Amino acid sequence: MTAKSNAGWLKVVGLGPGAEALITPEVSAALADATDVVGYLPYVERVAPRPGLVRHGSDNREEIRRAETALGMAAYGRRVVVVSSGDPGVFAMAAALFEALEALEVAEPEWRGLDIQVLPGISAMLAASARLGAPLGHDFCCINLSDNLKPWSLIERRLRLAAEADFAMAFYNPRSKARPEGFERALEVLREACGPERLIMFARAVYMPEESLSVTTLGQAQPEMADMRTLVLVGSSQTRLIPRPVESDKEGGEGAESESTPWVYTPRSVSGADA
Amino acid sequence: MTAKSNAGWLKVVGLGPGAEALITPEVSAALADATDVVGYLPYVERVAPRPGLVRHGSDNREEIRRAETALGMAAYGRRVVVVSSGDPGVFAMAAALFEALEALEVAEPEWRGLDIQVLPGISAMLAASARLGAPLGHDFCCINLSDNLKPWSLIERRLRLAAEADFAMAFYNPRSKARPEGFERALEVLREACGPERLIMFARAVYMPEESLSVTTLGQAQPEMADMRTLVLVGSSQTRLIPRPVESDKEGGEGAESESTPWVYTPRSVSGADA
Repeated sequence: MTAKSNAGWLKVVGLGPGAEALITPEVSAALADATDVVGYLPYVERVAPRPGLVRHGSDNREEIRRAETALGMAAYGRRVVVVSSGDPGVFAMAAALFEALEALEVAEPEWRGLDIQVLPGISAMLAASARLGAPLGHDFCCINLSDNLKPWSLIERRLRLAAEADFAMAFYNPRSKARPEGFERALEVLREACGPERLIMFARAVYMPEESLSVTTLGQAQPEMADMRTLVLVGSSQTRLIPRPVESDKEGGEGAESESTPWVYTPRSVSGADA
Repeated sequence: MTAKSNAGWLKVVGLGPGAEALITPEVSAALADATDVVGYLPYVERVAPRPGLVRHGSDNREEIRRAETALGMAAYGRRVVVVSSGDPGVFAMAAALFEALEALEVAEPEWRGLDIQVLPGISAMLAASARLGAPLGHDFCCINLSDNLKPWSLIERRLRLAAEADFAMAFYNPRSKARPEGFERALEVLREACGPERLIMFARAVYMPEESLSVTTLGQAQPEMADMRTLVLVGSSQTRLIPRPVESDKEGGEGAESESTPWVYTPRSVSGADA
């Protein structure tokens, strides 16, 4: 991927869940070639400073303004990377960028001709699933539990229908200080729809030094097990546990941080694990 | 990540959709350190041969036998990488590995103490979504349309409930020579549930030289638009198009292969793009 120094471009990229080892070479090349990095401040700070790179960090409710800024800079010849955590297409900056582009149809119609690319990243959902085993190994759904941009009634409706479809489920933004009660209601809906024995998993700060994983049941789950850094997964009716031996029984030595967490997986077939 | 030459391990990894630039450094390091690579032959062949690496390619219906072989090699001190395309946790080898591990509980109970890790990859769903814009920018579901391992009635039920929940949808394995009729039935169910104007996208061989993308409506979609190398996406009721100018209007020059395809995105809010 070569730079065209006289032509601006905009790439909306995913930095993955946090570890350098999960950033794709495609994204690393875009960052190395950029003149400007734009995004939510903690994500912008994950990009190391260097001469010739301007870092533009902003607050987390500023998505549309941030997208407009990025488009404007690209239109004037800058090579702009908009960073998201995880994957940019999953509850992140790619949708915000296209919302801004569409809203600017009248004011800046020529911006639709800009060289725009979306570069995928390892989403929190996939990273959490990998650390736990394979809980998303069969049909699943992915729901943003924040009601900032949609009515709570729609979230509840989707939870009930997802349970009826027997999907495994991944939940983003389960709980924040501004919305402490939503996740409690979500747990109530899920308990009613899936029963108290259904498996639920909490994956916090995945791939970071402070990572924590836990597996329990809907009957045992408490709302305070989740915060905004937690990806929550709920199994389907088929999802199963495999206990892992404790340290002294292990033959290998790596990956010691999650040994007490059982493996969780959803079989590929609906009738069980004996396919 | 250092090798322990006297201790075997097993890593189930995702190679992403096909391009080298989408393989994470974590997966590259595992491959560099491996003594054995195990998987479906076309995926094993994506790993370059080198001295000290044995490549074990097998047929695509051999998942459980392949998983047992990999576990056995790791138990005898080999450093084994099991490769999947995309992400290993999404309709791929991670679930098969845990199915095998669980089934071997009586015969090989100590294998549960093996050093096993799952390393995430860029899934076909995320790569296809990035190439098209942000069609999965809001709540979505992901369904394997193959009825090899589940009854067709369950697939149809999940399609209807997903439509009722107004999820965007990603479909794996939409159509094969052995099952030419299933996708046609899926399209009928979706037309009935979502109406003929709903957007549908076909992303074939994403990130490969032969990549092709197309965007149409359920009313216009034909079953033969999909094959086993196609990831199919269906929008929610909110999913929108942004036309892209043709080549002569463009200021930038990269990414020329998909310029005639409009951007497709699902806004972050249910009420439209003006958040």
